[in-house]
Amino acid sequence: MNIKVADRMEHISGSVIRKFAERAAADPELINFSNGNPSEVTFPIEDMRRFYDEALSTGYSDELMKYGVVKGFPPLTDFLKDRLHNKYGFDWDENDLFIVSGGTQAADITSKIWLSKGDTVLVEEPSYASCYNIFRCYEAELKGVPINEDGIDIDAVEKALMEDDSIRMIYTIPSFQNPTGFSTSAMKREQLYRLASKYDVIILEDDPYAELRFSGDEIYPVKSMDTEGRVFYASSLSKVVAPSFRLGYLVVNKRYSSYVNVCKQCTDIHSNTLAQYVAWGIMTKTDYEKHLELARSEYGRKAGLIRNELINHMHPSCRVSSPSGGMFIMIFLPENIDAADFVWKGIDRGVVCVPGSGFMIDGSKVSHSVRLCYATASDEEIIKGAEIIGKLTYDFIEGI
Amino acid sequence: MNIKVADRMEHISGSVIRKFAERAAADPELINFSNGNPSEVTFPIEDMRRFYDEALSTGYSDELMKYGVVKGFPPLTDFLKDRLHNKYGFDWDENDLFIVSGGTQAADITSKIWLSKGDTVLVEEPSYASCYNIFRCYEAELKGVPINEDGIDIDAVEKALMEDDSIRMIYTIPSFQNPTGFSTSAMKREQLYRLASKYDVIILEDDPYAELRFSGDEIYPVKSMDTEGRVFYASSLSKVVAPSFRLGYLVVNKRYSSYVNVCKQCTDIHSNTLAQYVAWGIMTKTDYEKHLELARSEYGRKAGLIRNELINHMHPSCRVSSPSGGMFIMIFLPENIDAADFVWKGIDRGVVCVPGSGFMIDGSKVSHSVRLCYATASDEEIIKGAEIIGKLTYDFIEGI
Repeated sequence: MNIKVADRMEHISGSVIRKFAERAAADPELINFSNGNPSEVTFPIEDMRRFYDEALSTGYSDELMKYGVVKGFPPLTDFLKDRLHNKYGFDWDENDLFIVSGGTQAADITSKIWLSKGDTVLVEEPSYASCYNIFRCYEAELKGVPINEDGIDIDAVEKALMEDDSIRMIYTIPSFQNPTGFSTSAMKREQLYRLASKYDVIILEDDPYAELRFSGDEIYPVKSMDTEGRVFYASSLSKVVAPSFRLGYLVVNKRYSSYVNVCKQCTDIHSNTLAQYVAWGIMTKTDYEKHLELARSEYGRKAGLIRNELINHMHPSCRVSSPSGGMFIMIFLPENIDAADFVWKGIDRGVVCVPGSGFMIDGSKVSHSVRLCYATASDEEIIKGAEIIGKLTYDFIEGI
Repeated sequence: MNIKVADRMEHISGSVIRKFAERAAADPELINFSNGNPSEVTFPIEDMRRFYDEALSTGYSDELMKYGVVKGFPPLTDFLKDRLHNKYGFDWDENDLFIVSGGTQAADITSKIWLSKGDTVLVEEPSYASCYNIFRCYEAELKGVPINEDGIDIDAVEKALMEDDSIRMIYTIPSFQNPTGFSTSAMKREQLYRLASKYDVIILEDDPYAELRFSGDEIYPVKSMDTEGRVFYASSLSKVVAPSFRLGYLVVNKRYSSYVNVCKQCTDIHSNTLAQYVAWGIMTKTDYEKHLELARSEYGRKAGLIRNELINHMHPSCRVSSPSGGMFIMIFLPENIDAADFVWKGIDRGVVCVPGSGFMIDGSKVSHSVRLCYATASDEEIIKGAEIIGKLTYDFIEGI
């Protein structure tokens, strides 16, 4: 048998995050800062039981078993549309919302609609590398621009757009970015939209952590200023209901509804219906604001704790990001330290993080940053883990 | 805004089946032979309630909330592997099984791994047109070969493979094909495999109805003779648990496991975990054979009924297929009748079917066949619907 797989397969590889998360899962003694799971306290398990039971004992439970609506379970799409209108002013005369199977699928569908061989996607670097692979599945090239404390580097975006007319899409995670924890300021969001408009490119705005702000003022998504319909807005229920539900949503201008519809049909037809019913129940028949507040206060407390502990223990030449929401914080080591070495040494000492190289376009290059997820570790683990990491920075910087 | 969607989007369009199914859904008075939903009596709703409740009250319910295993919930993959080994001799030293989000996703992942611009997929024509669109998403061309009473036309397959070296994949639904209800004989399956081997192409074997044989002897899948690892075997839980669960599986040679793994990560990371838990419960903790027997006897009875009624009422120049399993039967009208006209007239008279053109590569061409799904209609509806269709054949053939 000589037949070879499609060329695209040579350019994509398994998730580095998963590699470290699996290392952590294999040894429960390890303090796990590696994966992107939410805190267990945020899983509304009792409510889920109630709504699964309700779904399976209503008069229309048979209906919930059949093939469902491609766009999503209508009561859930209605709720999300109301919420996004009230929160950000999303306009449903202009736009449409589709339930998808997680934010990953939102990126997959967006890529299917827009990307072909010869196209380039401009990405924040570091960023969520699984999306790099999704773009590569459609044979697009990637070009990175830096991301700073206040978000994507606008000058670098403009320079790239000016120099490279193969750029068709900008991929951004504007809020509490994975992996940095940085957020793009309101001003930069506006500049980003204007540049996209000037150079006629699409923006894929990936906003799974939007509901998890624990400090600072709300910043509206880029989508909220999208008068032309060039922003594809993706979000997820993974961080506010449960990752295992595999639910997210994609908001697009109605001009593109038929494309999203057919791509969803070509991907998995529709997302799991009972999960949509239960998510809708949790969002509309329980105190959903209280549920979100629990997650926000949990992550706010833990973010503060891990940041303080890291600052207290780390060598002064190390920096650490200051997230105002979400689940991730990033350590920036001095440039002479290879973060992969650092992370493996950390595992030897009982702590699992993910090296920044796992979020770079070329994952084989040396990086000097380390991502920590503070969502699932206990306070005790955070204190102990930060101390181990702090000690490790001294050992690396001053020589072991 | 001048940016245009990717070229591939021009070649794919929404499901024709859905168009007619939605027409049927809009008017509950219509007798609905249009969609591919299973019979309501086959939905194990009480068992689902029990297993959702169990999943959400076990000591590891938190685990069931987190990101799951890409390959699938291990107890479910273990069960399916045992079953496929016992039923068909699938060899798990050589092969791997992945849970996917329905058979559609199995086709999407297989296409992502194998297809690029310039490739051709050889398909049975008519066949499940949603897969045509999936292949087009990866910019492949389609070439059709006829399908007969005993399955795919082997001579046409050989001729096509001989003439066209752009063919990389053969797409076949060997058992109780959608839309014809035909099954490919054991001999033809062997011939098909030999041809794939001779011309070094992949086979995507789509077998969602395999468990629904109600007459005749079991025929082993092409995958069971796959010594070289060129068969990607896809199946679904939609017809044996529930479509809304969006669960299926893909069996591939281990050589391709890493590719499937990364494609699944790039699509939706993993499939809904609770649904997998519940499917596993139904398959292992209830009398699953009895559950399958219920579906088989239901479909066997209805297939016999609709076929007899159609033969009794239709004009003698019409033929009808004779399924030995599955959910579909096909009427073949005389060549001078446009099946689309016929179907629309049927809707006027109270019956919704799908014209054969919905299953052709070029859906705009005139077809002379009509698909009927007998799974969801009641016996009374089948009797009444077959009579309406029968009368319609006379009106069309002898002039209205």
